[in-house]
Amino acid sequence: MATFTFQTQACCSQTRARAGVFSTPHGLVETPRFMPVGTLATVKGVTPDQLKATGAQMVLANTYHLHLQPGESLVAKAGGLHQFMRWDGPMLTDSGGFQVFSLSQLRTITDKGVTFRSPRDGRMIEITPERSIQIQNQLGADVIMAFDECPPYPATREEVEAATQRTYRWLERCIQAHQRSDQALFGIVQGGVFIDLRQKAAKDLVELDLPGYAIGGVSVGEPGELIDEIVRETAPFLPADKPRYLMGVGTYQEMVRAIASGIDLFDCVIPTRLARHGAVFVRGDRWNIKNNCFREDLAPLDAECPCYTCQNFSRAYLGHLWRCRELLVYTLLSIHNITELIRFTQKIRESILADRFTEEFGHWLN
Amino acid sequence: MATFTFQTQACCSQTRARAGVFSTPHGLVETPRFMPVGTLATVKGVTPDQLKATGAQMVLANTYHLHLQPGESLVAKAGGLHQFMRWDGPMLTDSGGFQVFSLSQLRTITDKGVTFRSPRDGRMIEITPERSIQIQNQLGADVIMAFDECPPYPATREEVEAATQRTYRWLERCIQAHQRSDQALFGIVQGGVFIDLRQKAAKDLVELDLPGYAIGGVSVGEPGELIDEIVRETAPFLPADKPRYLMGVGTYQEMVRAIASGIDLFDCVIPTRLARHGAVFVRGDRWNIKNNCFREDLAPLDAECPCYTCQNFSRAYLGHLWRCRELLVYTLLSIHNITELIRFTQKIRESILADRFTEEFGHWLN
Ligand SMILES: [Zn+2]
Ligand SMILES: [Zn+2]
Repeated sequence: MATFTFQTQACCSQTRARAGVFSTPHGLVETPRFMPVGTLATVKGVTPDQLKATGAQMVLANTYHLHLQPGESLVAKAGGLHQFMRWDGPMLTDSGGFQVFSLSQLRTITDKGVTFRSPRDGRMIEITPERSIQIQNQLGADVIMAFDECPPYPATREEVEAATQRTYRWLERCIQAHQRSDQALFGIVQGGVFIDLRQKAAKDLVELDLPGYAIGGVSVGEPGELIDEIVRETAPFLPADKPRYLMGVGTYQEMVRAIASGIDLFDCVIPTRLARHGAVFVRGDRWNIKNNCFREDLAPLDAECPCYTCQNFSRAYLGHLWRCRELLVYTLLSIHNITELIRFTQKIRESILADRFTEEFGHWLN
Repeated sequence: MATFTFQTQACCSQTRARAGVFSTPHGLVETPRFMPVGTLATVKGVTPDQLKATGAQMVLANTYHLHLQPGESLVAKAGGLHQFMRWDGPMLTDSGGFQVFSLSQLRTITDKGVTFRSPRDGRMIEITPERSIQIQNQLGADVIMAFDECPPYPATREEVEAATQRTYRWLERCIQAHQRSDQALFGIVQGGVFIDLRQKAAKDLVELDLPGYAIGGVSVGEPGELIDEIVRETAPFLPADKPRYLMGVGTYQEMVRAIASGIDLFDCVIPTRLARHGAVFVRGDRWNIKNNCFREDLAPLDAECPCYTCQNFSRAYLGHLWRCRELLVYTLLSIHNITELIRFTQKIRESILADRFTEEFGHWLN
């Protein structure tokens, strides 16, 4: 029996949406599903117990950030990420590619890899495809990601084509370097906003027969319609029997549209980031708890939400905590936002299983 | 049957230490016991569920702070503090006296009360003994405190004597103003560092036959030996069948010494305040999680501590979170520190019940 399997349970009769189960050594991931992000081996402000109660299944952490602090050796010594941060469910590490390109100063990119100055202590760091995989092997997540070159937006076709080709060469080296059969290495489709480059990249990757595929390099500044188009035109080239993961996407509408194109997995820092600004997702809308209209509002954020925050606290109390800048408000809003985005994908999943996806979520597709 | 009762279960044969049970409308408080502080209707960074798991029984909130934000009317409209902040155990509100005197600018004190400028919005606010009790009646804690004048340290005997006499006159007005039989009004013994003034104040208060008594105005800058002496010389004048509460005290040694003088209840912001500086209480010592010696230390803070933090996370992980200034570290360190101080008073209680207090805790008394 394979360590990693993906089984499709139902397909929408009107769109490419599907419901499935991705099996990992640390448990199942029911798809479509939103995955919370725990960049530095912690989902900001939320304990593992609280995270479990949100309905989280697979949780992300980040190779770039964890390499800088505390370093993968310590995590390995602790028994791996699961043990270090005490998340016993499935985990995924990003390769650090995106962060190396978006956060680092003074980087030098060659075919060998990327050299950059650490923003923490100024030392020069080289990350190659081999090194990224070694780090991820030490971190020990269930799913690890190929080290890719993520071109900025906008970029010329030539720049994007070169980056896409390099990403492919790097993927071959990632596969060679990967040492652990209890970790699944996912490839990442790049290609910017050039649909033909995306489609070629997808076809090339599929020939490598990987246990899963991601679409990367979206949500980097391009218009939302372009994200839709990229996903719609790329996803069909990825195999039906492998999970498809759209990286860095996690708003209501983006997720519905991507699911309609056949995407299974999402991640985004938005639920915890918005919480730190007092913003909450409520039934498809975005509110701010600072708003004076909530000052004496004794209702929960969402009376139908099963989260700890909504089961216990009023908008008035959350607004009070916000006005006092009490730490607890970040925790409570994060718990709600994560629960809300996961529940949203769970509801979509249920609609697909009942073949009612377009009836129930079609209004998001227009 | 009285709403509030205090029953002594055991007395130490060598000191005045005692173990008892204070019964309130929201449950029992086993004494001696440390009480965590939730100034603004939240124990900083800790959910009510997490707080319950620390062993907390009675929890404090503050009248001065809650009057300024969100205001007692909103709390009353929400059903009172218990419902507002979702703490279903016993609660106590401080009267605001200490904060009015220590935090406010431009205050005017007359026999009527205190007028001061709100540090939040600049408006002038008057708090009289009657007003403090009205506010506390609206907040709805199980125990409410008399509005007292807390003289600074150092102060002349004449200043302290005048403040102590005013505190007594204010207490009579507090008793008159108090409207709820489901709330116990505690008197506060003032008298600064003048033992005879403390003793006279205690005797005067006892004649009013209140359901409990506090010693206030300590830990305001005077040397630790003076606190010991004040408590040692004052507590015996308070009735044996009522709980005795030493306000604002909560370090290991101060608590052991006060318990030896017959004190039952303590409160202090120190566990959460220290957590925000990375400091933790471990078996009688104070450590800092920033320390490099913990960088690769995979042991919990205290292997014998039953708290969520110690049951799950290593010193290395906590140090990692600290270095990243991750919100979670404040929560995890607060949970441990609160648990530790409560457990310390629980262990003292058990030693008193077994009449082994001086054998087990005598080393703190020298
Ligand atoms: Zn909720
Ligand atoms: Zn602990």
